Amino acid sequence: MLPERQFINRIRGLAGRAKQGELVRGIGDDCAILQLPPGNQLLVTTDLCVEDVHFRREWHPARSVGHRCLARGLSDIAAMGGDPVACFLSLGIPAELPQRWVDEFLRGLLHLARQFRTPLAGGDTSSADKITADILLLGQVPSGKALLRSGARPGDRIYVTGELGGSAAVLKRLYGGEKIRPRRKSRHFYPAPRIAMARLLREKALANAMIDISDGLSVDLAHMCQESRVSALIEAGAIPRAKAVTLDLALHGGDDYELLFTARQHLTLPQKIAGIPITPIGRILPRPSVRSKVQIQDESGHAKLLEPEGWQHFAKI
Amino acid sequence: MLPERQFINRIRGLAGRAKQGELVRGIGDDCAILQLPPGNQLLVTTDLCVEDVHFRREWHPARSVGHRCLARGLSDIAAMGGDPVACFLSLGIPAELPQRWVDEFLRGLLHLARQFRTPLAGGDTSSADKITADILLLGQVPSGKALLRSGARPGDRIYVTGELGGSAAVLKRLYGGEKIRPRRKSRHFYPAPRIAMARLLREKALANAMIDISDGLSVDLAHMCQESRVSALIEAGAIPRAKAVTLDLALHGGDDYELLFTARQHLTLPQKIAGIPITPIGRILPRPSVRSKVQIQDESGHAKLLEPEGWQHFAKI
Repeated sequence: MLPERQFINRIRGLAGRAKQGELVRGIGDDCAILQLPPGNQLLVTTDLCVEDVHFRREWHPARSVGHRCLARGLSDIAAMGGDPVACFLSLGIPAELPQRWVDEFLRGLLHLARQFRTPLAGGDTSSADKITADILLLGQVPSGKALLRSGARPGDRIYVTGELGGSAAVLKRLYGGEKIRPRRKSRHFYPAPRIAMARLLREKALANAMIDISDGLSVDLAHMCQESRVSALIEAGAIPRAKAVTLDLALHGGDDYELLFTARQHLTLPQKIAGIPITPIGRILPRPSVRSKVQIQDESGHAKLLEPEGWQHFAKI
Repeated sequence: MLPERQFINRIRGLAGRAKQGELVRGIGDDCAILQLPPGNQLLVTTDLCVEDVHFRREWHPARSVGHRCLARGLSDIAAMGGDPVACFLSLGIPAELPQRWVDEFLRGLLHLARQFRTPLAGGDTSSADKITADILLLGQVPSGKALLRSGARPGDRIYVTGELGGSAAVLKRLYGGEKIRPRRKSRHFYPAPRIAMARLLREKALANAMIDISDGLSVDLAHMCQESRVSALIEAGAIPRAKAVTLDLALHGGDDYELLFTARQHLTLPQKIAGIPITPIGRILPRPSVRSKVQIQDESGHAKLLEPEGWQHFAKI
């Protein structure tokens, strides 16, 4: 590892110009300074990634870890229908970690950051026993226009973007001891946050409520129902699954970073938005009398409660 | 430990109302939403606190750890002359940690947060091997009025607030095996960020440049000189030391969270601002030709280079 001051100077060099877009002053002072255009609200989200909890060094190349950390935050901004503005990185680093690992991690993070015009505007470093990366994302949205978890209304149709379960299926194979080459198009190693899709849904006022699927459909739909004080009925056969993925993984596997949203029933939505398929999977129902908020119906029409079984230990505050 | 969802609900309960001041929506969605009043810029800082690096469980009560984590962030907002708006907490928790420790940590953090009207607006949790708390502070300052590290000009007088070395002196005694009762007034266990002082310096346009003393006077003055492209000469005898503290600790001890600022030489500053003493300790000089940017003069008038010797391993990006 480089001495800390040199390391910080290297990050500062990699991060690029301190003044970009809404960023008035980036790395180099006690705080970063940002100026949002009038008429906008600020969005803020933090995502904590810990070695051996969210990734493993032997499974995930450093570049994928950097990409995944930032993608989680960008996906939270997408879930509100917002545009990313800047990111911050707090990085805990074990003493034995090769500088090359850190450089590749930063490369993965900054490559994705450039794609979404999201400058790295600051952060903090510390020594640590395990690699610990806390990513802070700032975004903006026209005032009052953010898509909330709490906007779902009885009668709404429920939609998901893309396909589910693909990331968890890769993780399952990794747990099984398989070696998997981390391809650039892999939804597990290099997930693509649905920023463009979300912006269009917000601009065209198509969605009532939205959340990203980070913990798993069963958990995230339950969150939406909780915040909207409604229940939901989804159809097992309608859920779009990634190739060779079981229903169980599509329902409970996390880390897909697709979007889950509701739209008024009379709206006709296109089959694709921003190049990504959208699929209706069920309906929002009135506030439930039972504890569990989501029911799932099989092809014979039989409905049962769907217990949230995602990765609750990674849940957000 | 409580199950994660219950734990998050407890934090949500402790954090208080989701809508306060600039906070439109706090805990409970993919992002928090904030609305800054027009004419203001946003300040952002993150501070990473790791067990056995920034604190020890056997030395620091959980309440002090929570207080210290937030105080570091508030001090960064103060260093810009800003007002805190909201905080976010990413918390990594070992499985064996008693829930009582976490509750006390949150109590310490939220007590200080209430004092400065800074609602806890979100965050993230994860399991971790050691307690890891990343604190994000958002603040605001009238546009263009932030006090930067880069504003120091040759001829400026250099000032510090309060007394230096007190926190490091306690740490030294703790390292020496002494048991120290963590009093509420202790600058080490419960540092008081200089928000009110900083706001007055900014409002009355008294300061040219400012930084908080978190790493130690020698390091933080060098940072200011670096960003301002100037050098500095300080007087050893002028540096205000906490009770029974050596010059060395006052120069290089970190964690005091006092402010270091410069003011034009013709300005007459009061001896106290917001109840805290301010002391002139030297002068800003033109850009240096030598590597080291700070010189220190003893009482006989002999000057030598002052090498930065603070806690560089805790440095900020």
